[in-house]
Amino acid sequence: MADPGRLERLERRVRELEEELAREKRGRGAARARIDTMSPEVTDSNPYSRLMALKRMGIVKDYEKIRTFTVAVVGVGGVGSVTAEMLTRCGIGKLLLFDYDKVELANMNRLFFQPHQAGLSKVQAAEHTLRNINPDVQFEVHNYNITTLDNFEHFMGRISNGALEEGKPVDLVLSCVDNFEARMAINTACNELGQIWMESGVSENAVSGHIQLIIPGESACFACAPPLVVAANIDEKTLKREGVCAASLPTTMGVVAGMLVQNVLKYLLNFGTVSYYLGYNAMQDFFPTMSMKPNPQCSDHNCRKQQENYKKKEAARPKEEVIEKEEEIVHEDNDWGIELVSEISEDELKAASGPVPDLPEGISVAYTIPDKEENLMTGETVAESEESLEELMAKMRNM
Amino acid sequence: MADPGRLERLERRVRELEEELAREKRGRGAARARIDTMSPEVTDSNPYSRLMALKRMGIVKDYEKIRTFTVAVVGVGGVGSVTAEMLTRCGIGKLLLFDYDKVELANMNRLFFQPHQAGLSKVQAAEHTLRNINPDVQFEVHNYNITTLDNFEHFMGRISNGALEEGKPVDLVLSCVDNFEARMAINTACNELGQIWMESGVSENAVSGHIQLIIPGESACFACAPPLVVAANIDEKTLKREGVCAASLPTTMGVVAGMLVQNVLKYLLNFGTVSYYLGYNAMQDFFPTMSMKPNPQCSDHNCRKQQENYKKKEAARPKEEVIEKEEEIVHEDNDWGIELVSEISEDELKAASGPVPDLPEGISVAYTIPDKEENLMTGETVAESEESLEELMAKMRNM
Repeated sequence: MADPGRLERLERRVRELEEELAREKRGRGAARARIDTMSPEVTDSNPYSRLMALKRMGIVKDYEKIRTFTVAVVGVGGVGSVTAEMLTRCGIGKLLLFDYDKVELANMNRLFFQPHQAGLSKVQAAEHTLRNINPDVQFEVHNYNITTLDNFEHFMGRISNGALEEGKPVDLVLSCVDNFEARMAINTACNELGQIWMESGVSENAVSGHIQLIIPGESACFACAPPLVVAANIDEKTLKREGVCAASLPTTMGVVAGMLVQNVLKYLLNFGTVSYYLGYNAMQDFFPTMSMKPNPQCSDHNCRKQQENYKKKEAARPKEEVIEKEEEIVHEDNDWGIELVSEISEDELKAASGPVPDLPEGISVAYTIPDKEENLMTGETVAESEESLEELMAKMRNM
Repeated sequence: MADPGRLERLERRVRELEEELAREKRGRGAARARIDTMSPEVTDSNPYSRLMALKRMGIVKDYEKIRTFTVAVVGVGGVGSVTAEMLTRCGIGKLLLFDYDKVELANMNRLFFQPHQAGLSKVQAAEHTLRNINPDVQFEVHNYNITTLDNFEHFMGRISNGALEEGKPVDLVLSCVDNFEARMAINTACNELGQIWMESGVSENAVSGHIQLIIPGESACFACAPPLVVAANIDEKTLKREGVCAASLPTTMGVVAGMLVQNVLKYLLNFGTVSYYLGYNAMQDFFPTMSMKPNPQCSDHNCRKQQENYKKKEAARPKEEVIEKEEEIVHEDNDWGIELVSEISEDELKAASGPVPDLPEGISVAYTIPDKEENLMTGETVAESEESLEELMAKMRNM
């Protein structure tokens, strides 16, 4: 034999490699075993102890109930991925994730995805990470664009039937998408299904954002009033081809995801005050709140139908409850029913906008109010506008 | 030879194992190559394109400057880990991390750490994850408790000398610790060094938090006025032994980390308004802001010395600038100089506190104002207190 020690060296090498491989695999971790019942026990090994402590602290009556809920997250980008992670760590029952994008290195300025995931589909990468974090959560992921006709039908089907108990609707839909078309698709679906949902958005200049609760028929839907946020209806791909790239920050997106999931927890677990609208302006650290009544002339007929249903339901309620409801003050000269509940004045609102960048046609910066001469959807700086909220409402009415 | 095929089988096994190991390692990723210069180029492979877009959007003049800054993060828990991740993804020059805790499954209800990291030191686990996310950032981690005498000296040394250019001080210290003693240690160090820092905190009931900018001599330090937040000075271990476990939520901690790093970016990159104090009350979604002047009778002599230095520096300034400064309104009947800048009334502040849990002696819930008969550091519900801000100040003065 030419090399008498070769066999032993190979055997040793195999053992070393097997050990290293085992270490690597352990490193990525099958993570932790499933846990059948949430326990309040205070031990280092209990991943739910700090959540169950919300009961002892008097914040939440029945934290375990979180396991019975299903939430659909549409858009798994800067806000959606962090939203899904927060819900996963809170021990939500089931998550449905919808997205058709791939992870890119260009996404690394926001939380959640990591460079080694570049090239994977966002839903696939997210599911892998989230299962690892909390194997008690059920995941259902869909790697498609909800706005195409077939996918939209399938999306509607999953919203109506995809709860923990198949055939039951999800408890909440969260919109974490970055474009007008997808928001309108979610709005259409939820109006048709009477599905309660929450909207979220971050401005193109990265320094403001908002969340909004939409209860079909009860609060304004996305079609009732064009929001002050959101870029115009331009194909995302066109933008990218032209070399336009919106700014984004992990801070703003983290804050918006935090506000969103906090609102979800308050809504599902019944504590605190659920916000109908909460804005975030990072330049000035101000957080406007408001609530909007639905528009009786909404272009979405399902919204108008839901409004009728809501009115009937309200009328059928016992008297006392109705009276309590009526205490909500609506500006009488404003048939959109928009009421600014916060203490922030219009001037403060104006002053709080960041400088306005040079943007291509059709993109407007969040929270800027368009000029009198301009179309509603092309942005102009707020500081340049003399328009009152009432004038803006009048203009919207004439669109 | 007993087994003639053995050699070939072993050779094949070694090749297979090497390939699998390479795949595993690729999976976790050497991630991405280092990038020498931040580019604004809009390509999927550029991790800085969305940050450099802040320049085109008119928000930040010189985003690349972020690479010249060093930030120290003390405490790598629920707020500190997310803070470090945000700064890493933003492309900060250098991060110093200080913590002495180990990752536990009980931490999994907050963002960042993953179950397979349980048992590792927090700084070690964090460094591994963060390097993988952005290899352009320099990391220096210290696995010790800064409050012991020797470690405190070393901590002071690294704050004074640990910048990108060794021998220069860091640009900012961020306190993300969860106890009074560590906050006081950071306060003592920063007062002695004249080091600007930011404080952060989350309440024991998980539904409120705050951030605060402290410029020694110019704004109130941690010893100037006992904050309305923070548990009393009780050993953390004592609490754990008694089976007490504070509640925490990934939402609240994510929002606080986002507010903190947003303030850091605004401070370092010179955009927007840097907040002196920003609170977050999750129950009502309100965000109080205020600023506090230092206490001339502060118990920390280095704070008093810094106040003298600041006065001299202000007096030596050209006249116009001084006049501008004087426009800040301070309540004259309040020699703590505490001014509530926000629009939130005292009643709203009171109403916004959550229900008060049954807590052991010495723990108080953030943002509750103690009862007249009670010691300042033992909590009572805000709703039960009739005390005005002025009365509270008077009581603090007599402590």
